Amino acid sequence: MPTKLDMAKFAKFCKDMGFIFQSSEIYGGINGFWDYGPLGVELKRNIKEAWWQDMVRNPPPGPDGQEIRMVGLDCAIIMNPNVWMASGHVGGFSDPMVDCLKCKKRFRADKVHFACAVVDSTSHAISVEADNATDAEPLLKEKIAKLDKKKTPVGRALKAAPQLEYHAATALPASWPRPCPSDDCDGTLTEPRAFNLMFESHAGPIASDDNRVYLRPETAQGIFVNYKNVLDSSRLKLPFGIAQVGKAFRNEINPRNFTFRSREFEQMEIEFFCHPNESRKWYEYWRDLRRQWYSRLGLKSENLVPREQGQEELAHYSVGTTDIEYMFPFSDEPQELEGVAHRGNFDLSAHSHRSGKDLKYFDEEGWNALLQVRLEAFKDDKAKREEEKKKLEKEEKAQFQFVPHVIEPSAGADRFTLAVLCEAYTEDTAPDAKGNPETRIVMKFHPRLAPIKAAIFPLVNKDGMDEEAKKLYRELKPFFNVVYDQSGAIGRRYRRQDEAGTPFCITVDGDTMKDGTVTIRDRDTLKQERIPKSEVRKVLEKALSPV
Amino acid sequence: MPTKLDMAKFAKFCKDMGFIFQSSEIYGGINGFWDYGPLGVELKRNIKEAWWQDMVRNPPPGPDGQEIRMVGLDCAIIMNPNVWMASGHVGGFSDPMVDCLKCKKRFRADKVHFACAVVDSTSHAISVEADNATDAEPLLKEKIAKLDKKKTPVGRALKAAPQLEYHAATALPASWPRPCPSDDCDGTLTEPRAFNLMFESHAGPIASDDNRVYLRPETAQGIFVNYKNVLDSSRLKLPFGIAQVGKAFRNEINPRNFTFRSREFEQMEIEFFCHPNESRKWYEYWRDLRRQWYSRLGLKSENLVPREQGQEELAHYSVGTTDIEYMFPFSDEPQELEGVAHRGNFDLSAHSHRSGKDLKYFDEEGWNALLQVRLEAFKDDKAKREEEKKKLEKEEKAQFQFVPHVIEPSAGADRFTLAVLCEAYTEDTAPDAKGNPETRIVMKFHPRLAPIKAAIFPLVNKDGMDEEAKKLYRELKPFFNVVYDQSGAIGRRYRRQDEAGTPFCITVDGDTMKDGTVTIRDRDTLKQERIPKSEVRKVLEKALSPV
Repeated sequence: MPTKLDMAKFAKFCKDMGFIFQSSEIYGGINGFWDYGPLGVELKRNIKEAWWQDMVRNPPPGPDGQEIRMVGLDCAIIMNPNVWMASGHVGGFSDPMVDCLKCKKRFRADKVHFACAVVDSTSHAISVEADNATDAEPLLKEKIAKLDKKKTPVGRALKAAPQLEYHAATALPASWPRPCPSDDCDGTLTEPRAFNLMFESHAGPIASDDNRVYLRPETAQGIFVNYKNVLDSSRLKLPFGIAQVGKAFRNEINPRNFTFRSREFEQMEIEFFCHPNESRKWYEYWRDLRRQWYSRLGLKSENLVPREQGQEELAHYSVGTTDIEYMFPFSDEPQELEGVAHRGNFDLSAHSHRSGKDLKYFDEEGWNALLQVRLEAFKDDKAKREEEKKKLEKEEKAQFQFVPHVIEPSAGADRFTLAVLCEAYTEDTAPDAKGNPETRIVMKFHPRLAPIKAAIFPLVNKDGMDEEAKKLYRELKPFFNVVYDQSGAIGRRYRRQDEAGTPFCITVDGDTMKDGTVTIRDRDTLKQERIPKSEVRKVLEKALSPV
Repeated sequence: MPTKLDMAKFAKFCKDMGFIFQSSEIYGGINGFWDYGPLGVELKRNIKEAWWQDMVRNPPPGPDGQEIRMVGLDCAIIMNPNVWMASGHVGGFSDPMVDCLKCKKRFRADKVHFACAVVDSTSHAISVEADNATDAEPLLKEKIAKLDKKKTPVGRALKAAPQLEYHAATALPASWPRPCPSDDCDGTLTEPRAFNLMFESHAGPIASDDNRVYLRPETAQGIFVNYKNVLDSSRLKLPFGIAQVGKAFRNEINPRNFTFRSREFEQMEIEFFCHPNESRKWYEYWRDLRRQWYSRLGLKSENLVPREQGQEELAHYSVGTTDIEYMFPFSDEPQELEGVAHRGNFDLSAHSHRSGKDLKYFDEEGWNALLQVRLEAFKDDKAKREEEKKKLEKEEKAQFQFVPHVIEPSAGADRFTLAVLCEAYTEDTAPDAKGNPETRIVMKFHPRLAPIKAAIFPLVNKDGMDEEAKKLYRELKPFFNVVYDQSGAIGRRYRRQDEAGTPFCITVDGDTMKDGTVTIRDRDTLKQERIPKSEVRKVLEKALSPV
């Protein structure tokens, strides 16, 4: 990835190659929605498949070398609205917004800043929340009202004004002036109002409050509400994880940065349930594993930034979260690719409380083991044994019945796809047909993620080479996503595959007809090797092996 | 599948095994939405993967032995609303509904029938639409009004009344009485009103007519609006297909029959674009191929019913459609699994018209070939050649520029999953631990679709057998979804895997420790064979091979 990738040019490249299209482009598009084209859909499928393979089917051993137990789940996007009331999304999943009463534009209240100050009459400190500053208030209001908004737009030049401080609309007392920040408007903003980020709809024929439903803003809650069903049907014991891949929706005020902040997106989430005492260990396991996974699939370590959140940043339920951030080329700051959060027992407790269902886990093995040890002494005295058992049930059983703690590695499939595209994009130099250096664009995808695994070419379309190449193509096709191409000069065909990120180009030439060997060209090193055509499948299998 | 599968019992089995859960069950569920549990998600993933593999990556040769060109696409669920205006869904995708003005219940107008008649004064024929029957109308209205609704509920006993015919609410003149069909209500129904089946929402912070959006009711339209982008980025030539798998939503009035008629469902759709003259050929190719695919993956031929629609049933744009129907156990009639429709050029033309974009295909090769032949005679006369070329451009070029016709095989991923579950469910007899016959439930999934491919057991947990079995499990795990089970009697372990539909059970026993062989048990025949443990991978690969 070049240090300064021009995002507009990059988006055009993604469109021209069939990676990503603007949704509904023939109708002028729709803000915050994107489609994956023929190459993009294969790339994203490979990403989701790699995640499922590496996290669900075959995760690496745990911190003590133990087998990691994982199962999958696939929930509906629309769920009973109680799910979102219990999770806090109906009440709390919102941004504070202000509307202009005149031009009707809407702004995020925490992004609109007003010059605003109240001088504390005792301490002379400047503070917007000071209650006892009634003397200073009229003066300052007057001063603010006089400012020429056209010359000193709210949010910028006012910073220089003495004794005035900047405060977001969220922190401004209701009585203070709130000019609209639009350059061409002299209207006034409303007070901040919470705007919920969930898309709303109605299930059933009548649109009423009774049948309002929401498009899920995260896949996680589907896992929590099914936790008991999974436990009952799967004979799983703690610790274990439930994984889900699926679409989620957030009605972002300002979708931006290509596919990075979209209104419709796909998540790859794991909820890993464990004993509260072990949550630190599992939090660290997943935090480290998830970062390694990105590296293994081609993101350079220097572009990956794990950022452990401070206490003040943590979500209300979390006792620890690491954002795995990536140096996307559209920003100087690293941006979130995945959050690995220790959610405690917040979600299960909330759903247990609202639904009235017992979501506690019973560690039957542990309890039986304890019983066995403690009752050993009374094995010849049935009455004593019963008595002791009752005592233990009263005093110690509770510790074996608990709401599990949860570690949540929550990855964005679209964000990782975008990171992979950015990271893979390379402009370098390769020899042209005459051996002179020529600039090429090459997408250096990890072979497991590459949309096309190999391209099969006949050197020329005669002497049986095309038939031989087609035959090889047909042999490989049931097992790999391969293409056949016989049109244009061979150099031009190489360039096409470089732009698609195809790791291997296999050419059938004159020697193939004699000795059965083909050339296999490496996309990145440009090196060509001769191998027997019967070995091609093995070479591809090795490059694509998940282990 | 038993001929009479009790659906309630079957749904409970699906829940207990972790195939399908009611969505949001801990909150009493939500009508029309379902979740896939640990076994269900693997089954459905395998179904979607088999479809992609067999239809997109490696479809069988065409009617003339040609390579079938297929690419994938993955579009957003929410698109620009113009898409649904052009497709006719905003105006036309609706059911006529009537509401009771008193009890507020809503009914499908074509399902509510009223006794209603007008005697034609000339012919004395009974017809609701007769205009010249003003004399008879008051008499009949009076008669109907006198009927005791409590004793002769609308829709049943009135059938016996002389000179009265039954008519759906949709065909009733506005002035006629429309009693509510609810037994405990004497209210009156409204006239029928169209109720759109699309879920509505709003994109962006303000809910207004300007930003109303719809959840797609089918994935097909995403393909049509991207047709040009795919063509431009993929260098494809006609005929070719674009495939997509994804969620769609329909606000069904009455979701029913387990997952069969859900409000949220997943489609696997292909739009195959071809020259209008070749559409019949391709329609037949896909119709036959799609039926074969279901058979190949385990649906018995006698349960699959292709039903070619009559002209009067066809959608407004179609010149031919075959429904591939399946004998689901919840109905005596076969029910739709997939529709293979010849959609003509309806969709592309509609989008071209509304967007103002040219969506015609230009057969450049065909045009150049014609030019070459026709200009051959003038190859030495440049002026003549130019003249002839102009003439050809005027008279014949148009036939090389056309809106392609489309064949659409549209399959329901959830419906096929349900069919596979119903078909696989078998109760038979197998020997218990003592060799006595015992009833067992066995899910006879095709190995490619089975959620778990193999289970590895140690015969007993000693003499190193458990370690040896775990080792084999770890070797297989990166390549197949396998499980390890060492708990309980071996017969009980077999039963568990039978119920999960696992095709192979592999047991490590005393002989394994001596000669390195294991037993491999076939789920359906119950036969056990001894094979070297090094061959297990090959056996699984062969059973799971897509070709």
